[in-house]
Amino acid sequence: MARLKCVVKYDGSGFSGFQVQPQYRTVQGVLESALKEVHKGSEIRLQASGRTDTGVHAVGQVIHFDSPYKIPENNWKRALNTLLPDDIYIQEVTEVTKDFHARYSVVEKEYHYYVWNAEEPDVFKRNYAYYFPYELNVEKIQEACRYLEGTHDFTTFSSAKSTIKGEKVRTLYHASCKKQGDEVEFIFRGSGFLYNMVRIMVSVLLDIGQGRRNPEDIIGLLEKKDRQQVGKTISPQGLYLWNVRYNEK
Amino acid sequence: MARLKCVVKYDGSGFSGFQVQPQYRTVQGVLESALKEVHKGSEIRLQASGRTDTGVHAVGQVIHFDSPYKIPENNWKRALNTLLPDDIYIQEVTEVTKDFHARYSVVEKEYHYYVWNAEEPDVFKRNYAYYFPYELNVEKIQEACRYLEGTHDFTTFSSAKSTIKGEKVRTLYHASCKKQGDEVEFIFRGSGFLYNMVRIMVSVLLDIGQGRRNPEDIIGLLEKKDRQQVGKTISPQGLYLWNVRYNEK
Repeated sequence: MARLKCVVKYDGSGFSGFQVQPQYRTVQGVLESALKEVHKGSEIRLQASGRTDTGVHAVGQVIHFDSPYKIPENNWKRALNTLLPDDIYIQEVTEVTKDFHARYSVVEKEYHYYVWNAEEPDVFKRNYAYYFPYELNVEKIQEACRYLEGTHDFTTFSSAKSTIKGEKVRTLYHASCKKQGDEVEFIFRGSGFLYNMVRIMVSVLLDIGQGRRNPEDIIGLLEKKDRQQVGKTISPQGLYLWNVRYNEK
Repeated sequence: MARLKCVVKYDGSGFSGFQVQPQYRTVQGVLESALKEVHKGSEIRLQASGRTDTGVHAVGQVIHFDSPYKIPENNWKRALNTLLPDDIYIQEVTEVTKDFHARYSVVEKEYHYYVWNAEEPDVFKRNYAYYFPYELNVEKIQEACRYLEGTHDFTTFSSAKSTIKGEKVRTLYHASCKKQGDEVEFIFRGSGFLYNMVRIMVSVLLDIGQGRRNPEDIIGLLEKKDRQQVGKTISPQGLYLWNVRYNEK
């Protein structure tokens, strides 16, 4: 058996999220049916670095699967892309050792979130950025990013519906915000992210950019460990799973 | 009765072209149903600068319609945008005089065509640019553009299926090609365009960019007035009706 690691890019607009669900078109469902086709009808289960919700995009999602076939990496890439629809694309296939696991071996994940911050919406961005027409103070947001960085209990910034009841301490290595033209780009890199964490952080950062909260409020919000303290989870179409890093030997 | 001119932007991906067709979602159909809603159920017919095919986008399509209502321009804009789905947006509404006609008063039209000229396709561009992975000599294409500019009979560069049996002489004021990063942008401005003309010109220009024809071949192709001399009409998703100009007083 060979273990194959794939870097996958997809436009989340046409998928009901990542995880397989009967009757729905999901990223995992589409990938597994391509794998099944390559394997002449045998079911192949894949493992991903994590799930993405409906409408969330990926530039560098990572999955792995095991195959009895001996096929060169580039031929795997070509074979799978030929079978996949055009809103999903395998960027890279690498053969890895058996101790590699797409989820358990993750060292760092990077997410981007894009906001279309213009007076008028753009029909071409409706599925790819969050439309927010109000003025933003990007410096205040940057200041708030400094308070988010570091090792904290992020309970306040994670979905209360989360089924994972474990530890909510995560390390955010990097949080930043930059405006270029009418587009605002948020970048987050961390050891791991709780359910909805990026979308809740961006929601609070936009409040701060509008002057509805102060940057230093982040400190108190983190301490309270209470999801009720902050506003709505922002919509999914601005979110991109950008990159997943592993300790590669 | 007031005559209203609207500048309309739309993502063509979700429409079966511009023109009303029963059972299909078309740009005209969606716009006319919003107009009907504003007019409490009365049918309002609109006129456009021209049609666009399935999958073709518009940044500055122009339409006009007549209304018995006296509503300020900005309120028209707001009312219509509230009723329209998010893949179509009215950029501007202006009250014009009765001698203005969205089709007959056109002085100049501008089209853009985008080619994604990278080794690998990009899932986020699949509906917005034509994927063409082969090397292109942009200078040769620019040279060919010089031969297309001017007043010519463009029969060779128009669909043989065209129902318009009239004059095929048009003036192309401007034709250009530029590569920025992995994206190639074609710009065409002219007095008018025949059916499929931009998509056939781009197809020939890509042949020239690949070295399969020479720039000066354009002269002979124009002279032959024969659609059979050139290749396929290139796919619609790279095409944008960018701007329509009128002699405004």
